[in-house]
Amino acid sequence: MRLSRYFMPVLRETPAEAQIVSHRYMLRAGMIKQAAAGIYSWLPLGYKVLRNIEKIVHEEQQRAGHIPMLMPTLQSADLWKESGRYDAYGPEMLRFKDRQDREMLYGPTNEEMITDIFRSHVGSYKDLPMTLYHIQWKFRDEMRPRFGVMRGREFLMKDGYNFDLTKEDALHAYNRHLVSYLRSYERMGLQAIPMRADSGPIGGDDTHEFLVLAETGESEVFYDAEITDLKFGDRAIDYDSVEQCQAVLEEFTSRYARTDETHDAALFEQVPEARRRVARGIEVGQIFYFGTKYSDAMGATVTDETGAKVPVHMGSHGIGVSRLLGAIIEANHDDKGIIWPEGVTPFHCGIVNLKQGDAEADAACQALYDALNALGLESLYDDREERAGAKFATMDLIGLPWRITVGPRGLKNGVVELTSRRTGESEELSPEVAVEKVAAIYGLTQR
Amino acid sequence: MRLSRYFMPVLRETPAEAQIVSHRYMLRAGMIKQAAAGIYSWLPLGYKVLRNIEKIVHEEQQRAGHIPMLMPTLQSADLWKESGRYDAYGPEMLRFKDRQDREMLYGPTNEEMITDIFRSHVGSYKDLPMTLYHIQWKFRDEMRPRFGVMRGREFLMKDGYNFDLTKEDALHAYNRHLVSYLRSYERMGLQAIPMRADSGPIGGDDTHEFLVLAETGESEVFYDAEITDLKFGDRAIDYDSVEQCQAVLEEFTSRYARTDETHDAALFEQVPEARRRVARGIEVGQIFYFGTKYSDAMGATVTDETGAKVPVHMGSHGIGVSRLLGAIIEANHDDKGIIWPEGVTPFHCGIVNLKQGDAEADAACQALYDALNALGLESLYDDREERAGAKFATMDLIGLPWRITVGPRGLKNGVVELTSRRTGESEELSPEVAVEKVAAIYGLTQR
Repeated sequence: MRLSRYFMPVLRETPAEAQIVSHRYMLRAGMIKQAAAGIYSWLPLGYKVLRNIEKIVHEEQQRAGHIPMLMPTLQSADLWKESGRYDAYGPEMLRFKDRQDREMLYGPTNEEMITDIFRSHVGSYKDLPMTLYHIQWKFRDEMRPRFGVMRGREFLMKDGYNFDLTKEDALHAYNRHLVSYLRSYERMGLQAIPMRADSGPIGGDDTHEFLVLAETGESEVFYDAEITDLKFGDRAIDYDSVEQCQAVLEEFTSRYARTDETHDAALFEQVPEARRRVARGIEVGQIFYFGTKYSDAMGATVTDETGAKVPVHMGSHGIGVSRLLGAIIEANHDDKGIIWPEGVTPFHCGIVNLKQGDAEADAACQALYDALNALGLESLYDDREERAGAKFATMDLIGLPWRITVGPRGLKNGVVELTSRRTGESEELSPEVAVEKVAAIYGLTQR
Repeated sequence: MRLSRYFMPVLRETPAEAQIVSHRYMLRAGMIKQAAAGIYSWLPLGYKVLRNIEKIVHEEQQRAGHIPMLMPTLQSADLWKESGRYDAYGPEMLRFKDRQDREMLYGPTNEEMITDIFRSHVGSYKDLPMTLYHIQWKFRDEMRPRFGVMRGREFLMKDGYNFDLTKEDALHAYNRHLVSYLRSYERMGLQAIPMRADSGPIGGDDTHEFLVLAETGESEVFYDAEITDLKFGDRAIDYDSVEQCQAVLEEFTSRYARTDETHDAALFEQVPEARRRVARGIEVGQIFYFGTKYSDAMGATVTDETGAKVPVHMGSHGIGVSRLLGAIIEANHDDKGIIWPEGVTPFHCGIVNLKQGDAEADAACQALYDALNALGLESLYDDREERAGAKFATMDLIGLPWRITVGPRGLKNGVVELTSRRTGESEELSPEVAVEKVAAIYGLTQR
């Protein structure tokens, strides 16, 4: 993309309403614009990152054998009355009547609707196990929406629902989700720690939240420092293997890690003092096993091998897709701006032309742009007639992990400069080698 | 995908509520499930087609230089009061108050919001031309939602908005949209004819609707038969070229083609009688040039070369993404079921195992499945223990354009059967050649 043809309205001033760094940088980098309290438009740069995160979530869910579908944003109140949640859910649920005076709501979550789909179409244990998921906009009418996309009212969430014959099968589904979430977050450049969670109003026996450590996190967290050494990495996993998934669960949840909601001071004391950590974290996902809560209430049964009708064991599992943009920035930035992890960056590479209008510099930039494109790498080429300082400041703010700088002086020696946003280190390379190097970096991240 | 692990709840019975063929087949093939009147869940098979259509729309919009972003589903009433449409828009607009008693609405379209984004961030003619688009769920509270996704209440639409300095520039943007729409529909296997439209309540000078001919179409259409011979094909187009885009507009709109809303009997009489056609059509898109209607009302101005502030010339351009599924089926089916065009099919190929459980047949099917996968071709492998007749009926209903049938008798002679859903013709081929043939078919459609 040539910047002169893009729409990326960078702000010079820090917006007064933004209290945390991710909100400030998303506004300043022209990624979002507030449409109403807690409701945002995703401007082109922000939309690209949102799509990249969605893509990772889709790929990892499908790798785990989970089936994508899509439920609507609006729901009829009827199903919620059946489950008993229509009255139980507080004023966060946006309720209204349509022109025929039917009670409707903007879905804050989808347990009722997916259970209705299941009971309408599935009747035999032979169709299990089954996990369906979707990525859809939700609405929760927060009293005080704040922190930009971190606590918005209209937000994008992946929510998945497993249906299993037995508790054991459902716990395997739970473990599959845990593994797929670890992989997803790592691909986004995040370390998200599974912490024992409180089941809250949704009700449930087994539940973990995934928290990203960040100073601005809304939760206080307590954990054993050993946990931050754990990496899922690119190990092979057979999602059908109960043992393999269970082993990952044990590896990642056996050490102490809890939020203030479930913190147990006595247990924490048993962690050797040198390894005890107290910090803050941002919740970016949660997995739940809640048994037959909804299948009992809504009559979602299957016939088992003996012909008996039994309620299915369910769980629901969520990833906060839009809030992840905020979490990633909270965990990846410096005082100049965002530092995107390679896995989610809106463009693979920036190109800065130090002397726009100089025939040789323009041609070299265009050649780089074309060469990167030919390899399937998207670059953002700053082709504006601006001072070098302003171009660098913009690139630093929007946080592309790699930048190639092209100027007449370097070109005389046949080199351009490749700079890492994260380390600030630069090397002078021929344009061909610079392209190869960028390609190698992204080849390794498997995008 | 192995059918035994998929969720594709095919119905034996024709649902009573479905009046038109696309609605019937979408329900019977397990593509959608009604959640409330005019609101649907997209079950896995339907969701896949929806995503394929979305992908084509994204690719063709970006090829035309239009920039993707995303606006939220909910809007504040304030902007609509500014444009004057809050009162003008009828009961199709879903209005409600949030918990802070603020007036909100579920966006039926986005002219106001995009104009607000534009005026907040763009101030100079140097930033033009600019076209922004998004693909987002909309809501229109139809009095009588019907025909499944063809006239739903919650529906997915691509809407794009151009901002230009002059009327000439805006008409070039109009023409770019016309070209990109022709390309998009053709990739979906549709012929959509641009017809002069009525500007309606949105207001506008230049507007065309795109109509797909189908017996169940809601509009009566009148056209010169020559128009159906026009194909955009894979001709090269430079979207920056005013002349090239204008030439396409002239080629595709110079012959008589109108809906009943704009039909002019006297003009139609001038078409030679043998070429006059009266038929029915489904509207799948519309392009509008409406000048400075919103920029005047909302103060969206830029400074021109002389330093004067002038309102921008705008247009809005829509493709009915979710309704396209219905339109494609209306135009592509027979009495056994759907016949997907290659460009949008949910799976590239079906595999039918005539003797599930037979070691040789199972191995041959698995090998075909793996070989197609390795080429990036998705197949749906019917690995259920069902009669051949039931498997064929399911494949015919869901309408994958190609099917490979594997049975012990053929395997003895080293062959499988490749069948075209559209023509019903079959040929016996070695498994390797069958895979090559399927790959060649999809290679040609550039997916």
